[in-house]
Amino acid sequence: MDINKLRHSLAHILAHAIQELYPEIKFGIGPAIENGFYYDFEFPKSQNPKPEDLPKIEKKMKEIIRQNIAFKKKLISKTDAKKIFKNQPYKLELIEELKGKKISTYQSGKINQGSQFIDLCQGPHLKSSKEIDLNSFKLTKIAGAYWKGLEKNKMLTRIYGVAFETKKELSDYLKTQQEAEKRDHRLLGQKLELFLSDEEVGAGLPIWQPKGTILRKNIQDYLYRELISQGYEWIISPHIGKLNLWKTSGHWNLYRENMYSPIKIEEEEYMIKPMNCPFHVKVLQSKVRSYKDMPVKYAEFGTVYRYERSGTLHGLTRVRGFTQDDAHIWCTSEQTKQEVTKLLKNGLKILKTFGFKDFEIYLSTRPEKYAGNLAGWQKATNILKQVLQELKLKWQVDPGGGVFYGPKIDIKIKDSLGRLWQCTTIQVDFNLPERFNITYIDQKGKKQQSIMVHRALLGSLERFIGVLIEHYAGAFPFWLSPVQARVIPVGKKHEKYAKKIGEELALAGFRIEVKTENETLSKKIRTGEVEKIPYLLIVGDKELKAKTVSLRKRGKGDIGQIKQSQLCQKFLKELKN
Amino acid sequence: MDINKLRHSLAHILAHAIQELYPEIKFGIGPAIENGFYYDFEFPKSQNPKPEDLPKIEKKMKEIIRQNIAFKKKLISKTDAKKIFKNQPYKLELIEELKGKKISTYQSGKINQGSQFIDLCQGPHLKSSKEIDLNSFKLTKIAGAYWKGLEKNKMLTRIYGVAFETKKELSDYLKTQQEAEKRDHRLLGQKLELFLSDEEVGAGLPIWQPKGTILRKNIQDYLYRELISQGYEWIISPHIGKLNLWKTSGHWNLYRENMYSPIKIEEEEYMIKPMNCPFHVKVLQSKVRSYKDMPVKYAEFGTVYRYERSGTLHGLTRVRGFTQDDAHIWCTSEQTKQEVTKLLKNGLKILKTFGFKDFEIYLSTRPEKYAGNLAGWQKATNILKQVLQELKLKWQVDPGGGVFYGPKIDIKIKDSLGRLWQCTTIQVDFNLPERFNITYIDQKGKKQQSIMVHRALLGSLERFIGVLIEHYAGAFPFWLSPVQARVIPVGKKHEKYAKKIGEELALAGFRIEVKTENETLSKKIRTGEVEKIPYLLIVGDKELKAKTVSLRKRGKGDIGQIKQSQLCQKFLKELKN
Repeated sequence: MDINKLRHSLAHILAHAIQELYPEIKFGIGPAIENGFYYDFEFPKSQNPKPEDLPKIEKKMKEIIRQNIAFKKKLISKTDAKKIFKNQPYKLELIEELKGKKISTYQSGKINQGSQFIDLCQGPHLKSSKEIDLNSFKLTKIAGAYWKGLEKNKMLTRIYGVAFETKKELSDYLKTQQEAEKRDHRLLGQKLELFLSDEEVGAGLPIWQPKGTILRKNIQDYLYRELISQGYEWIISPHIGKLNLWKTSGHWNLYRENMYSPIKIEEEEYMIKPMNCPFHVKVLQSKVRSYKDMPVKYAEFGTVYRYERSGTLHGLTRVRGFTQDDAHIWCTSEQTKQEVTKLLKNGLKILKTFGFKDFEIYLSTRPEKYAGNLAGWQKATNILKQVLQELKLKWQVDPGGGVFYGPKIDIKIKDSLGRLWQCTTIQVDFNLPERFNITYIDQKGKKQQSIMVHRALLGSLERFIGVLIEHYAGAFPFWLSPVQARVIPVGKKHEKYAKKIGEELALAGFRIEVKTENETLSKKIRTGEVEKIPYLLIVGDKELKAKTVSLRKRGKGDIGQIKQSQLCQKFLKELKN
Repeated sequence: MDINKLRHSLAHILAHAIQELYPEIKFGIGPAIENGFYYDFEFPKSQNPKPEDLPKIEKKMKEIIRQNIAFKKKLISKTDAKKIFKNQPYKLELIEELKGKKISTYQSGKINQGSQFIDLCQGPHLKSSKEIDLNSFKLTKIAGAYWKGLEKNKMLTRIYGVAFETKKELSDYLKTQQEAEKRDHRLLGQKLELFLSDEEVGAGLPIWQPKGTILRKNIQDYLYRELISQGYEWIISPHIGKLNLWKTSGHWNLYRENMYSPIKIEEEEYMIKPMNCPFHVKVLQSKVRSYKDMPVKYAEFGTVYRYERSGTLHGLTRVRGFTQDDAHIWCTSEQTKQEVTKLLKNGLKILKTFGFKDFEIYLSTRPEKYAGNLAGWQKATNILKQVLQELKLKWQVDPGGGVFYGPKIDIKIKDSLGRLWQCTTIQVDFNLPERFNITYIDQKGKKQQSIMVHRALLGSLERFIGVLIEHYAGAFPFWLSPVQARVIPVGKKHEKYAKKIGEELALAGFRIEVKTENETLSKKIRTGEVEKIPYLLIVGDKELKAKTVSLRKRGKGDIGQIKQSQLCQKFLKELKN
C-alpha cells in the first residue's frame, strides 16, 4: 500500500466529517505529511473546535469510513468547478490560479445520495475507504495556520492526524512520541538548568547556563585532546570579517539567503561569519607549504551565525548561532583517500564514545548545479566509494545530494528512540582551492593545487547536545555529567565529613557538590534523582564512624557502602567505561 | 625644571633650525608631547627631508642652542600678526581663528640681529636655550601628518624629537626603545607564528595561529580551574542579541559610538555584543535568588566587538574584536567589601602567576556624569578605600575616573621594560541592578536590590598576550610555552629513539615536537633557539647508548646530560616553579 495515498485519503475523510458536523465550514487544503495528514478549515466564529472535540470528529470519520465510500477522480471545466465551489472562497481562489482548461477533482461517497464530499485534488487516493484500518489513525492536535502560509492572510484552523497501515504501527508511533515528549531537550534543558532560550535575547540564540557550559566543555576538551592526537592543530578565528572574503569563497553568491546583513565599518562592509573556511584558508596561506607539510589539518570550535526563519527554530537543534566542531584538511590528491579513510574511522569512533551505536551512512553525489569538471567529480566520488567499500561499511547513495563544490559522505546517528539525526559530514572540495589559489610545492619544486576537505564530526555542539539530551533523557554518562556526584550529609554533624569527601574528590578532578541544605534526607535524595546525578553519596552516623559512604547509583538506588578511601578509585574506573 | 617647557622650547628651536636650512619653509604647529616634541612643516617640493637629513638638522639646532637665545613672550595686534606671518598660510589660518584682540607670540633670538624665530604661541617656554643640555635630545623620525589631523587637509611633514633633562635619561630612554622594538609583539607574533593580522580579513581582527591558540588555551585553562576553585561558575553567551538589551543596559545611550551598526533579522534589530553583561544578567534572573545563594559569580571568556578608529589599532593591544576574561558578581551590600577584598587579592595572585611583580593601583572616583545618588557613591567609594587600606596596598586616587555607574579599582602591571599596562578592573555597579531590576529575597522574605560587580582580571586575552609577548620577548615560561621541548635527533638512526622520547613526554601531557628534518644539528639548534623553545633535547650515538638526552636550556645553552627516565620528573618540577 502507498502510505501517502492512505494519509491523503484520510485528509479528505477528515474534511468530509467536518462538513457533516459543521455545514457552514470553509475549506482550505489538506495534504498527506510525514506520519499523517492535516486539513485547514475556516470555522464559523463560535464554532472553532477545541482539543476535546477531536474524539467526536474522529468518531464521525469512522462512520464515514465504515460506509466503504469510493474515491473517484473527475476532470471538470473551470465553470463547473466554480459552480460546485461557489460557497468556498479559498477553493475559488485556487481555481482562479489553476492553469489548463480541465480541473481535477476527487469525489468521495455518492453525490446526492447520503454522505459525500468533493475536493479540488490531483490525487492519487485509495480506491475505497474499505482499505483503511479503523484503528490505525488518530487526530492529534489543532493549530493555527495562515492561508497559504502567508502572514498577511487569514489564520485558519489546522487539524492534524497521524496514520499508519496498521494499529501496531500507530501505537508504536504514539508510544515513541510520548517518550520523545518526556525527553524533549527544551524541557529537560530548562529542568536540568543546561541552557536558556530568552525571547529578549533573541530566538535561536541559546545562552549556556553553568551546568550546560560544563557539559559542553567536557565535549570540547575530549575533542581537543583527541584531534591533537590525530595530528590536527587548533586555531581561533574572529566572528566578523570583510564581505569580500565571502565573495571570493562564493558564499555571497550562492549562500546569501542564510547570511545576515553586512555591518559597515569605516566605509567597508563586514559580515558576521556563516562559516569558518575563509579564515582557515588565511592561516594555511600565512606561509608557503611544501608536499612535506601535507596534510595540514586545522580545527576550530567556530561559532557561526546563519539565518533561519523564526518559525523553524527549535531548542538547540535548530538555532541561529551555533558552534561547529569544524576542521579543514588540505592534502595532495594522492593523500585524499587515506585522509577520508582516517576521517571516517575516527569519526565513527568519536560518535561511539558518546554512546551512539547505529548509523546510516550516505554518499551524496553531484548535484544539478556544480562547479568543476565531470572528470574531477568522477574521481572524487570514486575515492569516497572506495573508502566506504574498503571499510566494509553499509551505505546508500543520495543521488545529487552533494555540495556544489564536491561530493560528500554524511553520517546520521540513530538515537535511543530510533530517530535519525544528521551529524558528521565529510566534504571533498576542489572549488575553494581554486578560488583562493591554495597550493603547495611538490617534489619537483612546482606549485600544485591542493585538495581541501571540510568536515564536522558532531556537526554543531548545540545540535549534538540537543540530541544527547534526548538520547540519554538527561541522564548523561558519568564522564559527561555536569555534576558527577553529590555528597549528602544526613544531619548537621555529618557536614564536616561530607565536605572533606567532596574536597578530596574535587581535588582528584571530579565534579562534586555537597548538599548542606536543611532538608530531609529523602528530599535531598529525591532532588538528586530529579537532577539525574550519577552518584549520591550519603553520610550519616554509621558512615562517619566506619569511614564509608552509602552509595546510591542513578537508576539503581542504594548499592551499598564503600570505604571513603576507595571512592576515587571507583570513580576513575567509571571514567574508563 | 618643567620638562614640558624644555620640550616645547626644543620644538621652537627645531622650527628655527628648519627656517635657517630651508628658508621657503611653511610652518604648521609644534607642541611638546610625551617624551619629546614635534613640529609640522610644509617643505617646498623636492626639499622634503629624509631620515638621513636629521643629523644635519640636529647640528643646526645645537648651533642655535649654543647662541644662548632667549624666549620672549609678546602680545601683538591681529593686524601686526598678519603682517609678520604674511608668507605663512597655516599661521594666517590660525590667526583668523583666534579670539580676543591680542595675539600671543614667542620670539627666540634677537629680531633683525643674527638668528631669530617667531611663532604664534601661548608658551610657557624656558627663559633661554642656556638651560638645555646639548646631549639630552635627539630627532627620531619623520612622518606624514594631515594639517589639523583632518584627512581632507594637506599632508604636512612632521619631524619628531625626544628630549629629557639629562643625557643619562635620554640614553636610558633610547635603550628601552631599542629593546621595545626588538620585543614588539607584532613582529614576534609573526616570527613565532602566534597570530595573524590580515588586511583581507579586516584590521583589528587577529586570527590565532596554532601556537598562539595553545598559548591562549594555556591561559584560559589556568583561569578556568582557578576561578572554579574561587566559587565562580562559567557560562557561554551568544555574540549577538536584540538591540533592546543594550537600550535597557544604557549602553545604546552612553556607549553607542563604540558599538557597530545593528543587524536586521525579521524586522527586529540585533547588535554584535560590545559587552557580556546583559547576557549574564539573564542567566542570573533565570531563577529567583535568595540571600543564601549570594554571592553568585558568573565568568565567561566573552568575545566582544567594539569600534575603534583604524588609525588607533595596534597588533593585539588595540583591536576591534577581543575576548574578555569577564565576570560578574552579585552580592548583598554587606558582602561587597569581602568580595572586593577577595577579588583584589586573587587578582594580584593571578597576575603574579604570569610573572608580573610590580603594580600600580588606582581608585577611580565619581565622574562628572554619574548615575545614582551621592550617598551611594560615598558608601561604595569608602568600601573600596577600606579594602585597599586593609590589604596595605600602595594606591593612588584617579579623581573622577570612575565609570558612570560606580567607582572602581584598576591595576596596571609593570612589564620587564618598566612600561605600565592597564589590566585588571574591578567596578562596583548600582546602576544595572536598578535598570534590570536585579533582586534577591532577604532573610525576611523581602525583595532587595543586589550589588553587581563587573571585573576583568587580565582585561582581554588579546591585550594581555600582547603584553606577555613583549614582557618575555617571546621567551615564555615553561608552563605557557606553545612548544615546551623539541627533541632533535643528530642523524637518521637516532630518529626512532627521538620519537619514543617525544611520545612518552606527550603522553605525560607535555607539548613536544620531534625535529626529523634533514638539516645539520647546528641548524636545528639555531632554529630551536630562534623559536625560543624552553628545552632542546639532543640525541645522538652517545645518548642513544646511555639512554640519556643532552639538554639545552633556553638562554643557558648546553646544561649536560640527563637520564631519559628522569625527563618527565624534571619537567613536572619545572611546571611547579
